[in-house]
Amino acid sequence: MITTDICIIGAGPVGLFAVFEAGLLKMRCHLIDVLPQIGGQLSEIYPHKPIYDIPGYPSITAQALIDNQLEQIAPFQPSFTLGERVEQLEKQADGSYHVIGSDGTVIHCQVVVIAGGLGCFEPRKPELANLENFEKEHVHYMVKNPEKFRDQRIVIAGGGDSALDWTVFLADVAKEVTLVHRSDSFRGAPDSAEKVFNLAQAGKINLLLSHNLQSLNGNGHLESISLINKQKEGVLVPTDHFIPLYGLSPKLGPIGEWGLNIDKNAIEVDTFDYATNIERIYAIGDINTYPGKLKLILCGYHEAALMAQSAFKYVYPDQKLSFKYTTVNGINAF
Amino acid sequence: MITTDICIIGAGPVGLFAVFEAGLLKMRCHLIDVLPQIGGQLSEIYPHKPIYDIPGYPSITAQALIDNQLEQIAPFQPSFTLGERVEQLEKQADGSYHVIGSDGTVIHCQVVVIAGGLGCFEPRKPELANLENFEKEHVHYMVKNPEKFRDQRIVIAGGGDSALDWTVFLADVAKEVTLVHRSDSFRGAPDSAEKVFNLAQAGKINLLLSHNLQSLNGNGHLESISLINKQKEGVLVPTDHFIPLYGLSPKLGPIGEWGLNIDKNAIEVDTFDYATNIERIYAIGDINTYPGKLKLILCGYHEAALMAQSAFKYVYPDQKLSFKYTTVNGINAF
Ligand SMILES: Cc1cc2nc3c(=O)[nH]c(=O)nc-3n(C[C@H](O)[C@H](O)[C@H](O)COP(=O)(O)OP(=O)(O)OC[C@H]3O[C@@H](n4cnc5c(N)ncnc54)[C@H](O)[C@@H]3O)c2cc1C
Ligand SMILES: Cc1cc2nc3c(=O)[nH]c(=O)nc-3n(C[C@H](O)[C@H](O)[C@H](O)COP(=O)(O)OP(=O)(O)OC[C@H]3O[C@@H](n4cnc5c(N)ncnc54)[C@H](O)[C@@H]3O)c2cc1C
Repeated sequence: MITTDICIIGAGPVGLFAVFEAGLLKMRCHLIDVLPQIGGQLSEIYPHKPIYDIPGYPSITAQALIDNQLEQIAPFQPSFTLGERVEQLEKQADGSYHVIGSDGTVIHCQVVVIAGGLGCFEPRKPELANLENFEKEHVHYMVKNPEKFRDQRIVIAGGGDSALDWTVFLADVAKEVTLVHRSDSFRGAPDSAEKVFNLAQAGKINLLLSHNLQSLNGNGHLESISLINKQKEGVLVPTDHFIPLYGLSPKLGPIGEWGLNIDKNAIEVDTFDYATNIERIYAIGDINTYPGKLKLILCGYHEAALMAQSAFKYVYPDQKLSFKYTTVNGINAF
Repeated sequence: MITTDICIIGAGPVGLFAVFEAGLLKMRCHLIDVLPQIGGQLSEIYPHKPIYDIPGYPSITAQALIDNQLEQIAPFQPSFTLGERVEQLEKQADGSYHVIGSDGTVIHCQVVVIAGGLGCFEPRKPELANLENFEKEHVHYMVKNPEKFRDQRIVIAGGGDSALDWTVFLADVAKEVTLVHRSDSFRGAPDSAEKVFNLAQAGKINLLLSHNLQSLNGNGHLESISLINKQKEGVLVPTDHFIPLYGLSPKLGPIGEWGLNIDKNAIEVDTFDYATNIERIYAIGDINTYPGKLKLILCGYHEAALMAQSAFKYVYPDQKLSFKYTTVNGINAF
């Protein structure tokens, strides 16, 4: 069991800034995110795009903003559980919470901060009849740890940046890489596509364009994948693992079942402190709603600051909070 | 008369960010500030101090933040009136406003945004009986335009950064500079103090430490200043101008008399859009108050964003506002 003051669900920009605001008040944070990397929508959807409306940054790419935020919170030593979805909250007799993840991780905390953005990013799945049979061991919707595929045969499916980037990366790791795409051109960055074409030409990967998936074959253990091209000709690719990378789409998911007041997929909060209707549970960033709400990063930052002031009473019930400027007090790290 | 969409009272960090948020929605802004420079408290009180709680900046000096904000709003071409205090608001028949400054500047606008921080910075004045007689022409509580003192004799009083910095600067401009300070050490930055001591040693300025002001002499026209030291010995310094730089302290000032709901020197607003009780008048940043309010720069940024969404209807009554991300739409400058 992990023990912390505040458990933050979601490691997007707003969850990360909450670590800072909590840290100023000497509250420790643990973050948990279903994605394998930190950064929420910014790192998952648009890492290289410039954002223009972060105050004080005429322009900053999404990933650079996340990197700067990580540097900003480093003194407060937050801990992370990545690649695990939060399924359940369990209230304890003393008012504290257990936050329970899909892989069994339990985080004991005084305060829960939901910074879950648009919700859990969930993979778009290919429509294949017997997909489920192989999901546990042989089908992977994200690459959490590339070493898993060392010296294995893999089939990657998709035409976007993820499919291209992992094909390039895993070409050096796996024994055999096949990239399957239903069209004959890629949606991903042109220079990633070029790398993939070059690898195919050099015989380092198999590239099957204009091919559709037909079935996964094997008895509990994946053995091969059947494909079909536009001329209805079949191909059988022997493989150990199947990695369909069709993108992720966010779903509110389990958060919707915790008894929180929900309005149009967002959690209703009070603008006094961004508390939800359940004591000790706050919601900040894209996942909350209130009159006037804008789904902007800078708004989530403000919400994090007010949340921390309010959460303090649960972590330090006997102390009085005094408000100090960072310029005057520094960040006063642990 | 200056004509604009939004008149922003106060050119601190929050007023500046309001220009950006208004600009995204194609609303033009004019800013007016009683201080001779842009930047509010940050540039006036702590330009060289690092701030640690600007999201995405592990550390940034106050002046650098202001400079970056100016770069960020440059595409929207805001205009400024500096060194003039706003005295009055006059509602026009069509609902628009005239914002009227102490020097007679009139700004016609559809929306007034009060981003006045802790209020008007007003000079701390020395206690001298006949100060008033000379205030109009010969006594200066701020240096708005150093050229005014070219080839003049001046007496500066004070022991903080302003007094030191202006002494150093004006040593090259004025005919004769005397710096008077009641103590024998300075409160300002040690290296500024060193510069002043060096100038005195080189005979480029007169330095009178441990001296108190006694009187201003002259008949309508300032002729000299009488000082007295700890041994009760008098000194008479002939001069054309007197520049007491004892710091500025903020006062709500005229803003308190416009019929706005005020609570403890701050303007009450609705967190839906940071509107005041008077239509078309918003208050953002340190000058407003609402349940949970924190006087933080990052909170003012959020308030500016929500304000702009709401103000839009007064500037473009016939248009529907659509919310777009800057990463998707750019800043769409004029
Ligand atoms: C293309 C695009 C451009 C954008 N441009 C801008 C812009 O210019 N300016 C701007 O301000 N905003 C912009 N945005 C919006 C901005 O990205 C969001 O406002 C921001 O990401 C919200 O941050 P957050 O931390 O609240 O949530 P997110 O970034 O969505 O992070 C939430 C995290 O919570 C995780 N999570 C959710 N539920 C669970 C669960 N049950 N268990 C575990 N983890 C969970 C998710 O995996 C995710 O990583 C843009 C968005 C997109 C898609
Ligand atoms: C020493 C110090 C350290 C601080 N450290 C931090 C920190 O670490 N983090 C943080 O977030 N905040 C900090 N603050 C607070 C921060 O400076 C304020 O929150 C911020 O300046 C508020 O910005 P603003 O734009 O609302 O107002 P201000 O910066 O106060 O600007 C308001 C402007 O309005 C002008 N004005 C007012 N009335 C009138 C009028 N009638 N006519 C014309 N002009 C007018 C004033 O001259 C002023 O320039 C600190 C403050 C101080 C003093």
